[in-house]
Amino acid sequence: MISIALLGFGCVGSGTAEVLTENKKIIEERLGCEYRIKYILDLRDFPESPFGSLVVHDFNAILQDEEVSIVAEMMGGSHPAYDFTKACLEAGKNVVTSNKEVVAKFGVELGEIAAKNGVRYMFEASVGGGIPVIRPMMTDLASNKITKINGILNGTTNYILTSMRDDAKSFGEALGEAQRLGYAEANPTADVGGFDTARKTVILAAIASGKLVSTDNIHIEGITEITLADVEAAEKLGYHIKLIGHAEVKDGKILALVSPMAIPSSNPLGRIDDVFNGILVNANMVGEVMFYGPGAGKLPTASAVVADIVDVIAKRDFAPTPLGWVSAEASDIADFAEYYCRRMVISAAGNYVTEEMTETEAAKLAAKSDVISVYRVL
Amino acid sequence: MISIALLGFGCVGSGTAEVLTENKKIIEERLGCEYRIKYILDLRDFPESPFGSLVVHDFNAILQDEEVSIVAEMMGGSHPAYDFTKACLEAGKNVVTSNKEVVAKFGVELGEIAAKNGVRYMFEASVGGGIPVIRPMMTDLASNKITKINGILNGTTNYILTSMRDDAKSFGEALGEAQRLGYAEANPTADVGGFDTARKTVILAAIASGKLVSTDNIHIEGITEITLADVEAAEKLGYHIKLIGHAEVKDGKILALVSPMAIPSSNPLGRIDDVFNGILVNANMVGEVMFYGPGAGKLPTASAVVADIVDVIAKRDFAPTPLGWVSAEASDIADFAEYYCRRMVISAAGNYVTEEMTETEAAKLAAKSDVISVYRVL
Repeated sequence: MISIALLGFGCVGSGTAEVLTENKKIIEERLGCEYRIKYILDLRDFPESPFGSLVVHDFNAILQDEEVSIVAEMMGGSHPAYDFTKACLEAGKNVVTSNKEVVAKFGVELGEIAAKNGVRYMFEASVGGGIPVIRPMMTDLASNKITKINGILNGTTNYILTSMRDDAKSFGEALGEAQRLGYAEANPTADVGGFDTARKTVILAAIASGKLVSTDNIHIEGITEITLADVEAAEKLGYHIKLIGHAEVKDGKILALVSPMAIPSSNPLGRIDDVFNGILVNANMVGEVMFYGPGAGKLPTASAVVADIVDVIAKRDFAPTPLGWVSAEASDIADFAEYYCRRMVISAAGNYVTEEMTETEAAKLAAKSDVISVYRVL
Repeated sequence: MISIALLGFGCVGSGTAEVLTENKKIIEERLGCEYRIKYILDLRDFPESPFGSLVVHDFNAILQDEEVSIVAEMMGGSHPAYDFTKACLEAGKNVVTSNKEVVAKFGVELGEIAAKNGVRYMFEASVGGGIPVIRPMMTDLASNKITKINGILNGTTNYILTSMRDDAKSFGEALGEAQRLGYAEANPTADVGGFDTARKTVILAAIASGKLVSTDNIHIEGITEITLADVEAAEKLGYHIKLIGHAEVKDGKILALVSPMAIPSSNPLGRIDDVFNGILVNANMVGEVMFYGPGAGKLPTASAVVADIVDVIAKRDFAPTPLGWVSAEASDIADFAEYYCRRMVISAAGNYVTEEMTETEAAKLAAKSDVISVYRVL
């Protein structure tokens, strides 16, 4: 009997309890062994929940229970999530998480601690919600050199942009609607400012390169400046404006950025609408593959958390493969000014798409008096 | 040093040699161990190839060499591919393959033999070419009950249908062009008749259900009867005609079929054109996810073969998880007459889409004097 503890009983935490319970029979059949949720850590009590009796408020109850071999951290935020994760790994417990903030900030250190203690630190749910992407990149593409990643990684912003386009809404109107529907938080900065996408982007870049870049060191633009007129002008040119997390690895250097981009409608990412996510990966042997699905949501994200739990249990008798990430040095990061792509220009004199140019050249273009806005083109 | 043998040095076989050589450094770094290709089995000699010196004509040289622990079978066809695979597994060698015909026909038996001998039988490359789909379904979706699969699984037919639509070609013209470009074989029956898609469909259905259905027991329709007029009528209604491999698991019964279907343009499969493939999977917790990419081709397919080789090497010290498939009994297979979906009707009196109906009801509709054709709608 494997004992699991859940840290956090919010959206993803309660979803994880539900997936572990609803699909218990088929999962145990696949694994050939039984499991149980032994504890759920939360500040609150849940007397109405069928899992209410498992709730504890003291993390030490979990940390000190040697029966607990797998901890699923779904608290969100850096602290105490990071501290609890570190303590669990040091105590020889496997940790799986949906917490992109912790992975993006502390992935190198936590990976090392896991390796030192012979346990696993897994985070399939941290990027793309329920979409299988991290494990496929690490296993199915292990025969490849991953050269480029472009992802629609945030459902909230994709919903807003789809709603602007399809319902002719302004950014403010679309954001308000997203908030009413529960797709955007009261304070939407992490989403609309591009910071959530940035965390996911540096995680994907680290899988491709083995080097984790700090989000402080990448260019991040959100969607707050996008006007309905821009969206409509893009459509007329055959492009959809999407918030893209981009990473490329070239000559050993990483170039990562988050930016609204004009996506040609023929590109597979162009058709990914509403709260769905898609991750397009280029690799030197396979060419281009894409992973698509629900990038957020209670059960989809929990599905990925439980996939990691299943993986840990399936490999419980095997020594884990170390994550092996290192922190990117300044010399590992490419100069953003050299980012090279076509540009979509919205101007009083007419709208058009340019040849490829660098950021420096694009800035000159944007400074022209008749130019309203300039978008990077994927 | 791990010694690998390749069976077959055609398109995928030579691609596999290329991937193993081109990416040797990064793969060995990931694995922390070295490998080499020790033999390549083929009837032909390749004096011009850099791999020419590795070519042998006698399978027994490979079978009897205890150093060879991994065999990649890329011969195509049932025999001798099946016989060689069986002999290798019985000799305690791991086998990876791109051969969908062997997996679809003999997957149950070969899985059992592998389990009995403590080795792996893996076939990521057998469905979707380079697209990560089999391992993600088996691992990332291990927390789910897979309920439905719809796939564009054959690049040749998708190329033909795209070309009919975009270039207003008849089926015959589009096929001729595909043959000139090397996308279709001189004898195109396996592709255009739907048989290649059928093999891939029963493999995916087996991953979902644990039961392998014979392609003899499923409904298979190809694309040879599709007219340009049908394609154009579908477009006007907002649908794209695609060849779909469909499988669903309901109340423990499997319903699988291969058929041209009308795909709404809003469906993620609707936009998959040319030789690309896409596999849309529904599962009870994650909802809907899609895997997209190059469904065939030398290096993409080889990328998947080598991913399996990497997986075997990475787990070389661990006991393999048995495949655990059984052959589907008649009672495991749902009655095709009950297949229930909307229908697109092309008729002299006008074209329209119906409510959902069974096959029996659709047959009555098709028999009406003014009806030209009836398509299943996804």
